[in-house]
Amino acid sequence: MRILGIDPGIAIVGFGFIDKIGSRLTPVQYGSIQTESTTAPEIRLLQVYEATEKLLDQYKPDAMGIEKLFFNRNVTTAFTVGQARGVIILAAAKRGIPIAEYTPMQVKQAVVGYGGAEKKQVQEMVRLLLKLKTVPKPDDVADALAVAICHAHSSGLYQQLNGAGLK
Amino acid sequence: MRILGIDPGIAIVGFGFIDKIGSRLTPVQYGSIQTESTTAPEIRLLQVYEATEKLLDQYKPDAMGIEKLFFNRNVTTAFTVGQARGVIILAAAKRGIPIAEYTPMQVKQAVVGYGGAEKKQVQEMVRLLLKLKTVPKPDDVADALAVAICHAHSSGLYQQLNGAGLK
Repeated sequence: MRILGIDPGIAIVGFGFIDKIGSRLTPVQYGSIQTESTTAPEIRLLQVYEATEKLLDQYKPDAMGIEKLFFNRNVTTAFTVGQARGVIILAAAKRGIPIAEYTPMQVKQAVVGYGGAEKKQVQEMVRLLLKLKTVPKPDDVADALAVAICHAHSSGLYQQLNGAGLK
Repeated sequence: MRILGIDPGIAIVGFGFIDKIGSRLTPVQYGSIQTESTTAPEIRLLQVYEATEKLLDQYKPDAMGIEKLFFNRNVTTAFTVGQARGVIILAAAKRGIPIAEYTPMQVKQAVVGYGGAEKKQVQEMVRLLLKLKTVPKPDDVADALAVAICHAHSSGLYQQLNGAGLK
């Protein structure tokens, strides 16, 4: 089973594809989609959408996990990130890829075993679990891989309890 | 010049196409895209996107005005509406349609001449300006037409002062 993890945003979208075979996790491809702040917002959305489509068509994930954002960020940020999140979800929905969302706390719980874990601990666990030499940069890439790992660990139970998908 | 006004949302998207010939405004088509709350969020986004694409291809607007949302609404709503807004903007961006956004206050100012106008006043002015027999329902449709009128009234000056497009 191939899982795509996404850390959404408009300036940087972190992505990470991993394969889960039995309980074994293997990194397939990871990186970031970046857009320029000098580009018009609608063009940035288009760039995020088209880059996501390209990734989905190239790596053909069976499922996508996406970070559910902090609820204490400001509302302007929420709109902007929400818009980017919308076009990423759309790209997956058009292809019938099941989507699940996880809060940062759920991701930490799944990856480190403790919902209050520090960012550095999560990154180090991502590195260890995927047998990477270094922590992927920028942080958004490591975060995306963490979401993918979270989905790999919790997908069976999560889907039984909650149904797959967004809330 | 044909203008599409949009009042974005995930349950109801209001839309209104108007033609501006000289200073004369004529309604072309208006209504709403509606999705069911029992449908999965990603499918609702897909429905909004596909319905928007269909409208754009059928009525071929030269410009799109979209409501910039209240900044005092809660963050959860901001994410949800932001996601819907993202896919609507994407559909226009894919077709190279210029997009401008207006706050509710700008819309009221342009339609009624007073930024603190009441909803009912705005709706009545929409009805009068477009020579409609009744105020379109639901409110989202009247709001979308108000955004289209706002863009028709302010597009020349707005584009000179601010550049067309989103902030």
